[in-house]
Amino acid sequence: MILLTPGPLTTARETREAMLSDWGSRDGAFIALTAQLRRRLLALVHGEQTHVCVPIQGSGTYVIEAAIGSLIGPDDKLLVLENGVYGARAGAIAERLGRQVSYMHWPQSAPVDPETVRAALRADPSVTHVLLVHCETTTGILNPLQAVADAVAAEGRALIVDAMSSFGAFDIDLRRTPSTAILASSNKCLEGPPGIAFAIVARQALEAAGTAASVSLDLKAQWQGFEKNGQWRFTPPVQVVSGTVKALELLEAEGGPPARLARYRDNFAVLLAGMKRLGFSLYLDETVQSPIIATFHMPKAWGLTFAAFYDALAACGFLIYPGKLTGEETFRIGCIGAIGPRDFESLLAAITSILDAKAPGAGPGNP
Amino acid sequence: MILLTPGPLTTARETREAMLSDWGSRDGAFIALTAQLRRRLLALVHGEQTHVCVPIQGSGTYVIEAAIGSLIGPDDKLLVLENGVYGARAGAIAERLGRQVSYMHWPQSAPVDPETVRAALRADPSVTHVLLVHCETTTGILNPLQAVADAVAAEGRALIVDAMSSFGAFDIDLRRTPSTAILASSNKCLEGPPGIAFAIVARQALEAAGTAASVSLDLKAQWQGFEKNGQWRFTPPVQVVSGTVKALELLEAEGGPPARLARYRDNFAVLLAGMKRLGFSLYLDETVQSPIIATFHMPKAWGLTFAAFYDALAACGFLIYPGKLTGEETFRIGCIGAIGPRDFESLLAAITSILDAKAPGAGPGNP
Repeated sequence: MILLTPGPLTTARETREAMLSDWGSRDGAFIALTAQLRRRLLALVHGEQTHVCVPIQGSGTYVIEAAIGSLIGPDDKLLVLENGVYGARAGAIAERLGRQVSYMHWPQSAPVDPETVRAALRADPSVTHVLLVHCETTTGILNPLQAVADAVAAEGRALIVDAMSSFGAFDIDLRRTPSTAILASSNKCLEGPPGIAFAIVARQALEAAGTAASVSLDLKAQWQGFEKNGQWRFTPPVQVVSGTVKALELLEAEGGPPARLARYRDNFAVLLAGMKRLGFSLYLDETVQSPIIATFHMPKAWGLTFAAFYDALAACGFLIYPGKLTGEETFRIGCIGAIGPRDFESLLAAITSILDAKAPGAGPGNP
Repeated sequence: MILLTPGPLTTARETREAMLSDWGSRDGAFIALTAQLRRRLLALVHGEQTHVCVPIQGSGTYVIEAAIGSLIGPDDKLLVLENGVYGARAGAIAERLGRQVSYMHWPQSAPVDPETVRAALRADPSVTHVLLVHCETTTGILNPLQAVADAVAAEGRALIVDAMSSFGAFDIDLRRTPSTAILASSNKCLEGPPGIAFAIVARQALEAAGTAASVSLDLKAQWQGFEKNGQWRFTPPVQVVSGTVKALELLEAEGGPPARLARYRDNFAVLLAGMKRLGFSLYLDETVQSPIIATFHMPKAWGLTFAAFYDALAACGFLIYPGKLTGEETFRIGCIGAIGPRDFESLLAAITSILDAKAPGAGPGNP
C-alpha cells in the first residue's frame, strides 16, 4: 500500500526495520538515542544557541496542547490565526484549558495576512502569544511564516508555530525566523513512524514558564527530566524513537530539508499535471498551494462518490484522504512520505483506469 | 539484551515484526485492527456487558491523567490509596487538575488494608472516587483488589484501578470485581511495544461524564470518536497498535492471563531461590510480593554500587532496574516480558560470576 495521506504515511523500509529492537528505556544506549533525536531535531531548525528540543509521547495534537498549557499562563492571551481545522483545534484546546483566546479568521482558501495580524496586535496589547499553522493540512495551504514571525516579533509578542506538516521539508531557520516554539511530529515530512511529537522551544520561555495545566503534557518538566538524566519522565515508545532517529538519518542522507522539499515538489508537479489532464481541478489557487497535500474538487457530473473512488484506488494499492471542507465534495492527496514521482505516475494510471471503467470515454482528454 | 525491567520489556520477535508495515490510520484495515484491539482488551477482563475499551496514544501516566480528568468532576473528591510512587503520582495529577484529593498512606512494604478504606469512606461521605494501584511497581507489592473493590462498592463509591503492572497476568473479572475504570498500557504484562495505554471504563460512567480537563486526554470524546467511525481522533501510533494486537494474539495462544501468570511465577521462583542462594534478600515480605517485579537489598558489605552492578550485568546482556526507595540501597528485577525461567538461570550465572570477580570467595554459599 502506498499512503497518499498527511501521515501516518509511507515510511522507508530501513525506518521500519529500526523498530525491530527492544530498548531499556533507562539504559545508556537509549539515553544516547534520545540525545541524538533531540540534537538532530534542534539542528534542523538551527536552534542550538537559543532553543531546546522537548519530545513528548503521543500525537501532534498532544504537543499543541502541551505548548499551550505550558507556555501560556492564565493571565496571558492567545491570538489564533485560523484558516483551517488545525488552527480552530488549537483555539479549542486553549479554551478547554481556560486560557484567554481571541481569533482572526480567514477563508480556508486564503493565507493568513501578516499586515492585518500586525494591526490586530497593535489594537490589542493584551495579546501575549500568537499561534500560526505553517501549512494547514485542512487544504494544503502554506501560510507566510517569515512575514508573520517578523510582525509578531516587531510587536513584542511570542509566536507558537504549528509546523506539523512543514517541519523537515520547508526551511525553518530560528536564527532569522523569531519563534518561541516550533511544534511538529515524527510522522509527517520527517517520514518517521507516528507516536512522538516535539516542541523546539526558546530556552528562556521554558525557564520562565509557570506550572503547566497537565502533569503528562508539561513541557518544562519534560525538559527538566531530559536535562537531569537524559531520560524520558514516563515510558517512551522506544521503537518509535528508534524508527524516528533512523528517519532523521535518512533525511540527512537525502540532503536535508531542501532535497526533501524538492522531491515533494516533483511529486506534486507530476500529480497536478496529471490530475489537470484528467479533468480535476485544485481547490486552492496554485500560488498558495504547498506541495505537501493537495485538495481536489470531485466533479459532480462524474457521479463518483469519495467512498467509491477511495475503494477503487485502494484496490490498486493507493490510499488517499477525504476532503475536510464542509459543503464541497473534495478529496486530498498527500505528496509526502518515502515516495517519488514514479509512484504518482502509477497513481495517475490507476485513476485513469478507474475513470475509464466508471464512464468510458470520460477519461483523459475527455472529461 | 534481555530486559528485566517493568517495561518497556523484552517482546516476542513476532510482536516486533508486526511493526514492519505502514497503515493508513483512517483506512478500513486499520479500523478493523483498532476494533480488534478494543475487543480483545475488553474481553480479557470480561467487561463486554458493562464496560467499553478506550485506548489512547501515550504512556500509562497519560491514561491515569485521562481517567482522572475525564471521570472525576470539579465537585467530586478522589481518595488515593498510596503505598508507592505510582499512587502518589496519581494524586499529584489530580491535584494539578484542580480536583479535590485526599490520601490514605501505607508504608511501601505494606499492602493497602480494605477495612481501613471502608472505615475512611464511612467517615467521609464527600469522597466520590477511590484510586487503587493494583501492583505497585515501586516495590512489586500486590494490593488486594477484590477486597478493596468490594469495600468501595459497598460504600457506593467509584473505583479507579491502576492495573498497569497487573493487566494481562492477574485475573481481573469485571463481573465480580466492581470497578468504574481499569487502566493499563500495552507494554507490561501484555508484552506489547510501548506507545498506547487504555481505559476499560463503565459505559454509564462515560456517558455521565462532563467536560474533560483536556482535549487530548479526553476519554469520553475518544470513545465517541471510536463509536462514530471506528477511528482514533488524533494520529495513532499505527505500528504500536499493530504490535500490540500481535502481542494479544500471543497472549491468547499462551493460554491467557492464567498461563502468563504461571510463567511469571516460574520466573520469579527461579530468581528468588537463586538470589537467596547468593545471599540477597527480598525487600518485601514474600506473602505480599507479586511475581511481576522484585526489589532486593544490595548488601552494603559487598561494596558494590548499583551502577557497577548494572554495567556488569549489561555487559552480560541483562538490563536490570534501579530501586525506587529512598534511604535504602536496593535494585529491582522484573520477571515480565517474553522471557522464561531459563533466562533467569542465565541471569543467576551472570550474577554469580560478577560477585566472584568482585570478591573472590564471597560468591554462592559464601555471602
